[in-house]
Amino acid sequence: MSEHSLPQIPGIRLASVPARIKNWERDDLLLVAIDEGASVSATFTQNAFCAAPVTVAKEHIGAGGVRALLVNAGNANAATGERGIEDARACCEAVATALNIQPKQVLPFSTGVIGEHLPLQRLLDGVPRAAEQLRGDGWAAAAKAIMTTDTRPKTASRSVAVAGQQVRICGIAKGAGMIQPNMATMLAYVATDAAVPQPLLDTLVQEAVAASFNRISVDGDTSTNDACVLIATGATGPTIADTQSEDFLNLKQAIVDVHIELAQAIVKDGEGASKFVTVQVTGAASSEEALKVAFEVGESPLVKTALYASDPNWGRLVMAVGNAGIEGLDPGKVNIFLDDVQVVEAGGRAATYTEAQGDKVFAKPEFTITVDLGRGDSCEHIWTCDFSHDYVTINAEYRT
Amino acid sequence: MSEHSLPQIPGIRLASVPARIKNWERDDLLLVAIDEGASVSATFTQNAFCAAPVTVAKEHIGAGGVRALLVNAGNANAATGERGIEDARACCEAVATALNIQPKQVLPFSTGVIGEHLPLQRLLDGVPRAAEQLRGDGWAAAAKAIMTTDTRPKTASRSVAVAGQQVRICGIAKGAGMIQPNMATMLAYVATDAAVPQPLLDTLVQEAVAASFNRISVDGDTSTNDACVLIATGATGPTIADTQSEDFLNLKQAIVDVHIELAQAIVKDGEGASKFVTVQVTGAASSEEALKVAFEVGESPLVKTALYASDPNWGRLVMAVGNAGIEGLDPGKVNIFLDDVQVVEAGGRAATYTEAQGDKVFAKPEFTITVDLGRGDSCEHIWTCDFSHDYVTINAEYRT
Repeated sequence: MSEHSLPQIPGIRLASVPARIKNWERDDLLLVAIDEGASVSATFTQNAFCAAPVTVAKEHIGAGGVRALLVNAGNANAATGERGIEDARACCEAVATALNIQPKQVLPFSTGVIGEHLPLQRLLDGVPRAAEQLRGDGWAAAAKAIMTTDTRPKTASRSVAVAGQQVRICGIAKGAGMIQPNMATMLAYVATDAAVPQPLLDTLVQEAVAASFNRISVDGDTSTNDACVLIATGATGPTIADTQSEDFLNLKQAIVDVHIELAQAIVKDGEGASKFVTVQVTGAASSEEALKVAFEVGESPLVKTALYASDPNWGRLVMAVGNAGIEGLDPGKVNIFLDDVQVVEAGGRAATYTEAQGDKVFAKPEFTITVDLGRGDSCEHIWTCDFSHDYVTINAEYRT
Repeated sequence: MSEHSLPQIPGIRLASVPARIKNWERDDLLLVAIDEGASVSATFTQNAFCAAPVTVAKEHIGAGGVRALLVNAGNANAATGERGIEDARACCEAVATALNIQPKQVLPFSTGVIGEHLPLQRLLDGVPRAAEQLRGDGWAAAAKAIMTTDTRPKTASRSVAVAGQQVRICGIAKGAGMIQPNMATMLAYVATDAAVPQPLLDTLVQEAVAASFNRISVDGDTSTNDACVLIATGATGPTIADTQSEDFLNLKQAIVDVHIELAQAIVKDGEGASKFVTVQVTGAASSEEALKVAFEVGESPLVKTALYASDPNWGRLVMAVGNAGIEGLDPGKVNIFLDDVQVVEAGGRAATYTEAQGDKVFAKPEFTITVDLGRGDSCEHIWTCDFSHDYVTINAEYRT
């Protein structure tokens, strides 16, 4: 999606400035101002070592009335103890002063290296500069400012008719490594100008994240800093209250779609990734079981290196399926397809399968691996990428 | 350990021959003959797609009276359906004919590529050739014959005084990739000339595997074919019956030590591995919790790429600890040490820590990462290795 097609969301203004969080010249500090009256919901990392800004953001969002977000790239402010918490609070105070709001109305976010203290003064100096530059069309610049090992900014938007009005949704995300279910060093900010009551928005963000960021895997690690924020400004859009109405379902679908597009963009930009693969599991006894098998396949280093090599080594696929710990799984009922090519039939090599067919599918930059377990009606899918030399290079040299 | 120091185990004879299971010249078929009267115990893969030989071996060992093992490298006979089972049975029949025993007294094992049928005739031709060459000092050759992606054979032995007699223990193993708790494409065969009653030996093999092969991780994948066999021939050694006796404890320790030495050799020979790292977790509320954290750290691709880069990126260590899903973990009580250098203190960077100290430890080929959770008295450890460019190369090109 080109930057120019990103809509503005009335009620949201953004500004990105260079604050030299690391030794670079780029924008690395993002300020988002939210007009009064918006609903704001968020989900946060499950990592027990959650970063200082996550601790503070959770506390502040619980108080309600959120009016601003501050995001820095280059330093995660994680594993930084009490001083980390104090630094995050100081950032909120600086934003509060600049925007004339309360510190607890500010949510802080950080992404980057773990275990180093924030260059606090640089952030404090950057905040008023950002506050002077807030503008409605700052989304594209914002998507760039929050990048770390990302090779490209990630944006998505939709427009949908709700109660006879066009409602806009715009979102940005960052993340390329440490991506896994339960999110990871992933930050995502999505806003709509519809008015959605807080309890409804709280449910919506959970559902949207479950359908998107919790279904992607780059390397099986989960970060200390991830967060996904959903904002409904209500500035121009209609008020949504009835969860059974077609209007709500349309809005919900559009919001989920924005989340999915951002999540897929993260996998496609996976560190060193050269392939985008959907792992679909059908015929499972439950959704939980289907997801378990899908992640076992999608996260296996041996499967991921085979993807990288464009080698349809289906033996590794059955190995991964067998490792999912599904009690009573009958290998003799398992069928596996590479796109529409059946490679495994009743647990063994399909009679019709030829290596040439498999090679053709695996040579593609995007394809689907479908595993049918033959034991139920549940079906789930995840998105994954390959494990390449570049992954090792990027992560071996990250701090240098 | 040099090959010449491997002891013979009275009651065991071995022979390795080239059977051209793959397009190579090396020995790839191992026959082990066991004198009558021995006890034989084994543990097998937990993978639901267990290979045909595993199915047959489990069935045969249940019948008791095992007299022979047949192991081929180069082809796993896994995901091969009914024909795979028939092939494994045909191999047992060939061994039975050659040694004048019953087919159900033979345990078959295969390791190599998944999903291709065995070149059966070559195995059947190889068996009588091997039977003619059985000898007591065949252990070193056997360790070579069972190798796949291993870069070196793995052997270990001990001698221990039991009831005034010297008892010998000798073992071989193979495995380099797909190594994970619950074993993986790992085969291990350990024998002693002590006489151990079957029920006692069954417990012993479980304990030995729990302390060794179930504590190693190369890449988090588990194979369809792994097995560990423990044989007590009783040919010359004393009979062990009292599990409280010092004699039994001595024998047990020596057997466990042989397993640990073999397991560590597998990690050291991990595909592309350049580092051997012990991850020790102390201060855990339970053994289970300690192992969970140890594996989360030892299997994190981000930790493993940092090990490869010799980069003491302790932020990734706390991230991995935080991901272990330990309920109520207090990051503020977590301390982490690199050998005896404290890098994390109360959840943050230790005041005394310098990068130079961390660099020095990470530059070593072998070191220990100790994570103290500060919430109990349980302590466990595992062994792991780094994730290198060579890992990707080896596994991307395995079938070519």
